[in-house]
Amino acid sequence: MGKNVIVGQSGGPTSVINSSLAGVYEASCRLGAEHVYGMLHGVQGLLAGKYVDLKEKLKSGLDVELLKRTPSSYLGSCRYKLPDWKDDPEPYEKLMELCKELDIGYFMYIGGNDSMDTIGKLADYGAHVGSDIRFMGVPKTIDNDLMVTDHTPGYGSAAKYISVVIKELIRDASVYGTKYVTVVEIMGRNAGWLTAAAALARGADSEGVDIICLPEVPFDMDKFLAKVAKVQESKPSVVVAVSEGVKLADGRYVCELSDSAHATDAFGHKNLTGTASYLCGVIGEKLDTKTRAIELSTLQRCAAHIASLTDIEEAYAVGAAAANAAFDGHTGEMVALKRVSDVPYRCVTELHPISDVANLEKKVPLEWLNEDKTDMLPAFLDYARPLVDGELTPVYVNGLTTHIYLPEV
Amino acid sequence: MGKNVIVGQSGGPTSVINSSLAGVYEASCRLGAEHVYGMLHGVQGLLAGKYVDLKEKLKSGLDVELLKRTPSSYLGSCRYKLPDWKDDPEPYEKLMELCKELDIGYFMYIGGNDSMDTIGKLADYGAHVGSDIRFMGVPKTIDNDLMVTDHTPGYGSAAKYISVVIKELIRDASVYGTKYVTVVEIMGRNAGWLTAAAALARGADSEGVDIICLPEVPFDMDKFLAKVAKVQESKPSVVVAVSEGVKLADGRYVCELSDSAHATDAFGHKNLTGTASYLCGVIGEKLDTKTRAIELSTLQRCAAHIASLTDIEEAYAVGAAAANAAFDGHTGEMVALKRVSDVPYRCVTELHPISDVANLEKKVPLEWLNEDKTDMLPAFLDYARPLVDGELTPVYVNGLTTHIYLPEV
Repeated sequence: MGKNVIVGQSGGPTSVINSSLAGVYEASCRLGAEHVYGMLHGVQGLLAGKYVDLKEKLKSGLDVELLKRTPSSYLGSCRYKLPDWKDDPEPYEKLMELCKELDIGYFMYIGGNDSMDTIGKLADYGAHVGSDIRFMGVPKTIDNDLMVTDHTPGYGSAAKYISVVIKELIRDASVYGTKYVTVVEIMGRNAGWLTAAAALARGADSEGVDIICLPEVPFDMDKFLAKVAKVQESKPSVVVAVSEGVKLADGRYVCELSDSAHATDAFGHKNLTGTASYLCGVIGEKLDTKTRAIELSTLQRCAAHIASLTDIEEAYAVGAAAANAAFDGHTGEMVALKRVSDVPYRCVTELHPISDVANLEKKVPLEWLNEDKTDMLPAFLDYARPLVDGELTPVYVNGLTTHIYLPEV
Repeated sequence: MGKNVIVGQSGGPTSVINSSLAGVYEASCRLGAEHVYGMLHGVQGLLAGKYVDLKEKLKSGLDVELLKRTPSSYLGSCRYKLPDWKDDPEPYEKLMELCKELDIGYFMYIGGNDSMDTIGKLADYGAHVGSDIRFMGVPKTIDNDLMVTDHTPGYGSAAKYISVVIKELIRDASVYGTKYVTVVEIMGRNAGWLTAAAALARGADSEGVDIICLPEVPFDMDKFLAKVAKVQESKPSVVVAVSEGVKLADGRYVCELSDSAHATDAFGHKNLTGTASYLCGVIGEKLDTKTRAIELSTLQRCAAHIASLTDIEEAYAVGAAAANAAFDGHTGEMVALKRVSDVPYRCVTELHPISDVANLEKKVPLEWLNEDKTDMLPAFLDYARPLVDGELTPVYVNGLTTHIYLPEV
């Protein structure tokens, strides 16, 4: 059996996916791996023979600390969908050959739903050909839409960024005391976890957002406009948090109503942007108010400068737990987080079969929304608050946060 | 002579305009002011009789510390242009009457070019009617376009935010190793100081931005596309920092080439947005690459969570210096920052006549740009680096930054 580890990162970046890489790396080193290889740009890059030896790249404890503070995927990423191995075994054969050359015993893949599809297929193929390589999935996604896990690493930091900047935008938008509607567009194709996090902004020091629109709730333009107008009767500055993925009752995305073209990616997902801008256009046309559309865009998935410490630590923990499980002989499983205590908040890691996770989506429970589905109830706030808690001080040099990166990515 | 102080905030918000308010407030208290009034929504609100007694609102040292960490204008703001007093003395008479009622001896106004126009007119009118009220201007603007001052409070924090998030965006954008052009749209109507700050991102830990487009440099679409294509030959992920105010040689704003309508404000300024989105459209049409437009929008002027400590301290210092000067008998002047040492960096405050500042704009010197005017030279980096330096730890409660606000604004 191989003695070395290979680890890859896949799918959209997060602020803490590198903390999971740090967890896999340091645990693998402690477990005696001679080499910990990092595939560049996930399995797609590995198929092209691209990888690095992480012990040659992460040379000190400081490098690992910077890694934990560096957003996006240190090893690069891919959006590559493996074919069914029964239809096309060629990429599988190639990957197995590469693993044999590198004497790989443990294969770790950090990613979201689509990446769990990849690791699940590899584990299936491995079992089919009698490979003794252990394949483990490490969860990652700002979207928080993975099944079986209490939440996903990456979510807490994005949620913290969203609620912190929305608090700032609320202050900014009220400054003239004039009628003004700010629509903040937040990521989330089918699951509104990130948009729901905007509800955290409300508190003794902030009026909070006035309307939240999740993709789980069919979007009704007339009701929406009526609600905006109603709120504005008593409060000139109205702040709306809207998911990029809000859909009409007929299933069309609201952003599809605008003129911009919308491409699709390798997994068939539509490129969703322009929701806030479209809504501002309609609001400006129908109501007597100024508007401003703000897209948090990729800023929300890479804002490592304000990452949640809880998130960084949990991202590290799931990475380390995957290495531990693989060395213990587990394969075809994903590490999940299980909340074992609310007060004080405490999560532990546990293992689940990949098949319980891959290609499935966890949505926001509708019972966590208020009656007219425009605000989050305390059940959600209690769920989300611990996930944004704590800060890991960035390493500032000349006033700017410091990262570590691989020029070969 | 009146014994009380009144202070107002005007123009666009910044992350540190409240630190200037804290400086005015604390210095005025120490100088013996019985009441320090805050006009709500600047002179426009004051004309409507709206003000608060700050000693009733800022009750503890903690309140003042939160004020220094709260973005946007605690007292609210306005974009109100006073008429010439020779044409229409009515608002002047009304303001003087209100000042008499409140026993005001010192009138402080925190703002940018337009606000200095206001304080200058008030000082002129005051001299004309023989008022003994002292009128002092406190500089503020993220745009850094005020004359006579080395830089403006507000600029350093916006510059820090821009360079920190651009470092994060650079990591995010390179993750797939595929051809990708990110165009980041940054505020700045006629002066490119903020966009120039994107150049700070480059360092040992970051490739930095590839192209910088300032409004000081006429925008040539063909040259721009050729440059993007050239950079992309060796580097798939190209990051461009573009000012919202870039103009063609014929004087039209680039964003005017797009379809969106563009309104104007009370000072006749056009509403400039859509530059990045328009450029991405052209790049996507002419070059074989994916694109992403990111508007930093109002996020860049209210990101107090990553404000520069240097900026917070200097904002406080100019506020306190204005109070000191007014109590010393100065009037019709603005506090400016004078750099007295580069290494170590040190600035002191000095006074200048408002007429040297109001309605004028300081642009980025062209000799601080490289030959093809797409990058900043070391002279600019040396100028800007100290301004983004240092951090004031936010006060986190439940993982979110804490503010202080006036519900009556």
